Amino acid sequence: MNAAQTNPGQTRVPYSELVLLLIRIFERHGVSPAVAIILAENCASAQRDGADSHGIFRIPGYLSTLASGWVDGTAVPEVTDAAPGFISVDARNGFAQPALAAARGQLVDKARRNGIALLAIHNSHHFAALWPDVEPLAEEGLVALSFVNSMTCVVPHGGQRPVFGTNPIAFAAPRAEGQPLVFDLATSAIAHGDVQLAAREGRELPPGYGLDSAGQATCDPQAILDGGALLPFGGHKGSALSMMVELLAGALTGGNFSFDFDWSRHPGAQTPWTGQLLIAIDPAKGAGRNFAERAEQLVAALHGAGQQRLPGDRRHLQRAQSMAQGVAIASEQLAKLTELAA
Amino acid sequence: MNAAQTNPGQTRVPYSELVLLLIRIFERHGVSPAVAIILAENCASAQRDGADSHGIFRIPGYLSTLASGWVDGTAVPEVTDAAPGFISVDARNGFAQPALAAARGQLVDKARRNGIALLAIHNSHHFAALWPDVEPLAEEGLVALSFVNSMTCVVPHGGQRPVFGTNPIAFAAPRAEGQPLVFDLATSAIAHGDVQLAAREGRELPPGYGLDSAGQATCDPQAILDGGALLPFGGHKGSALSMMVELLAGALTGGNFSFDFDWSRHPGAQTPWTGQLLIAIDPAKGAGRNFAERAEQLVAALHGAGQQRLPGDRRHLQRAQSMAQGVAIASEQLAKLTELAA
Repeated sequence: MNAAQTNPGQTRVPYSELVLLLIRIFERHGVSPAVAIILAENCASAQRDGADSHGIFRIPGYLSTLASGWVDGTAVPEVTDAAPGFISVDARNGFAQPALAAARGQLVDKARRNGIALLAIHNSHHFAALWPDVEPLAEEGLVALSFVNSMTCVVPHGGQRPVFGTNPIAFAAPRAEGQPLVFDLATSAIAHGDVQLAAREGRELPPGYGLDSAGQATCDPQAILDGGALLPFGGHKGSALSMMVELLAGALTGGNFSFDFDWSRHPGAQTPWTGQLLIAIDPAKGAGRNFAERAEQLVAALHGAGQQRLPGDRRHLQRAQSMAQGVAIASEQLAKLTELAA
Repeated sequence: MNAAQTNPGQTRVPYSELVLLLIRIFERHGVSPAVAIILAENCASAQRDGADSHGIFRIPGYLSTLASGWVDGTAVPEVTDAAPGFISVDARNGFAQPALAAARGQLVDKARRNGIALLAIHNSHHFAALWPDVEPLAEEGLVALSFVNSMTCVVPHGGQRPVFGTNPIAFAAPRAEGQPLVFDLATSAIAHGDVQLAAREGRELPPGYGLDSAGQATCDPQAILDGGALLPFGGHKGSALSMMVELLAGALTGGNFSFDFDWSRHPGAQTPWTGQLLIAIDPAKGAGRNFAERAEQLVAALHGAGQQRLPGDRRHLQRAQSMAQGVAIASEQLAKLTELAA
């Protein structure tokens, strides 16, 4: 493997080699070649862009879930053309990303023809970051939104027990010159993957992020993971947005709510079995057809007001570095990955 | 006027009489009959539902703006059928509500035909609450989202000077039995109308809501109004959502950004001259056609988790009381309104 040592204990792996390594791992653990390519590119791109909580850190979770029989790594999604602007996909208990890939071309066509279109995926497992689902649409000049619900771990505002998942919202918009403006935000005070990372690294969390199993506020990530719960970000507002995500990604798609599924018969299962909604809009249709130029004006105003880092900037910087120098991976983790692929 | 005294200093006015009173006021201050009905019903319904910061409290602002020549109270909106799922409306420097009213029927038709449709309004002034724009769509069984940008008063996360407006997001979803789930949230830490109310009542604000004109944190609402600025809710997440609202309501519609317009030649102008986006989705199209029943299940789960008040509940309760007993108005304010109508 063409990898150059950089920081002590860290190896830099060319992006394409990381993808191939992850494809081998997925294929060796019950995933069909068609699905393996999609999951590998998704996971490698998160690692490449510095989104550590959705990078190779997730591989053990994927493999544990596959081994449990909870998710079908060979599922072939079933795409239904439900209306001129509405595509419905049954992921057939497989991952959400192959379901999106199967219908993405239709979504783009419908958005360009109608001005707006939606893709509703159900019976799907989403275990990845959400921004990789919307960013490519912005690269084609569309404005995109996505919503995915997950698994019960967030207490609604004013309530005592968890109902919502971390329920992220992602948005992407094209710019005339720079990379698309892209964000992906959990409606919980913190993403579940970041709680797991903090627990593994022994870091305390700031106050206001979670409750322990007795319903008391805690800064200990392990106490949150051991039967505790997260809080929504921004009080009643984040809670309302999380409710909206349950309705859009769960009810509207025909998928499970975050509290609907019971994986107790599948020890090791970690992937939420819910739904996902994508909305794509073609800004060329109306009076805002100079959208990408206007987005540049907004970026200039934000820079002028002193906001140095815009949503997506850090990922784009990290991506450029990773593509030039290789994707940074702890050497110990790389050794484990190599074992898993063998 | 058929009004029964209730609390000391408070009068209860039948809703329909309040609407008629407000119609007379608008008509006497340069608004066409067609627009006056729409604005009067909008404003009276906010008062009826206990949304004080968007009720009759706003009347002096409307009249001041109309007197300044900043907004055209007689504008006839121009509706363009831009694509099968895309309606574009030029509000012709009038209010956003008549523009919405002119295209609402088409929006519903397009959503039912295509599964999803959008209405992009530009060259419009939005000076009201946002939930009245989406709630009626949910009453027809559609899921609705709306975004409107406003006027520069919110500092982007990490920046020093304001760029965004308070930029609210509203959402409405039908339920099989109860009233629709509806929320309307400013992406600022507090709505501008609530800062004005607090200043008028001499109340301090909680920390983290705003900055004074020197860029220092303050709890004094008047210091925020006197050249200061608001902060986004929820840190970088609320800031990202506010950026999204600028792009959806401003750039995508062809409307102004919150920082684009200069009303300095119109002393007394108070209405932001921007744009508004509405998205309507027909849940009957895909695998989530039992949406309204699923929404009831979610409501039951939220109640079961101890969340007693769901988004929209307080307004619906207040509405029922106002319809039964009349809309509560401070007697002093009612006297002023009666003068303005004379």
